Amino acid sequence: MTVDKSIEEGTNFTPKFDANGLIPVIAQDSKTGQVLMSAFMNAQALDQTIKTGRATYYSRSRGKLWTKGEQSGHFQKVDQILIDCDQDCILLKVTVDSGQCHTGHQSCFYRAVKPDAKTLDFIAKKVFDPDKVYPT
Amino acid sequence: MTVDKSIEEGTNFTPKFDANGLIPVIAQDSKTGQVLMSAFMNAQALDQTIKTGRATYYSRSRGKLWTKGEQSGHFQKVDQILIDCDQDCILLKVTVDSGQCHTGHQSCFYRAVKPDAKTLDFIAKKVFDPDKVYPT
Repeated sequence: MTVDKSIEEGTNFTPKFDANGLIPVIAQDSKTGQVLMSAFMNAQALDQTIKTGRATYYSRSRGKLWTKGEQSGHFQKVDQILIDCDQDCILLKVTVDSGQCHTGHQSCFYRAVKPDAKTLDFIAKKVFDPDKVYPT
Repeated sequence: MTVDKSIEEGTNFTPKFDANGLIPVIAQDSKTGQVLMSAFMNAQALDQTIKTGRATYYSRSRGKLWTKGEQSGHFQKVDQILIDCDQDCILLKVTVDSGQCHTGHQSCFYRAVKPDAKTLDFIAKKVFDPDKVYPT
């Protein structure tokens, strides 16, 4: 495998967007270390995130930008933007309030795979009632 | 946006592989909470990860499965497999030793984007010399 050393060892920020113009982004709670969600950004979303200090993603299903919290009020204040070795994944360290997942859970990762590899265990309770936050 | 409640609220494990048969996977240190890397699995890699308890991914560049650590010895012991709300991203909680990134860093996320949005700051030192681990 040929590796471009300047991408991995350099100090130029050159995020690698995929064929659809997207890069995967992980949001992690700066304080607790909890991984909150995974989403995508396009160049415009990344630019807006950097300029405003609030995490803005690109919704593939809706085909448009969305600032996390624009509907629920649960914004993500961006403390730090990290990029991985080959610059094809972004990690946001964010400060958040309660309830980051639209299902009502603090994190989107609220279920664990059971040893049977077919079913899931709920490992977290909801922290808010999504029906009261999001219009149906 | 139409949401399939059974995917988000149910207990059936139905990982959503993309058009290329892949699902993104985040590996997080169970003990420290540090996000170590991001990679992809296909169904076979996921199956092997569950069966062996060692994280196995699918390398897009090499077009084959790779068990993390098969070359370096730095395996990832899988403690827990979490799935997100819409079941299109996996979070692995793993127990690891020192040095998870092939560059020699503990995590692949060793650089932060500076306020100029163009350059990077190294926020971590290497924990091993990759030239001594990986053949060139």
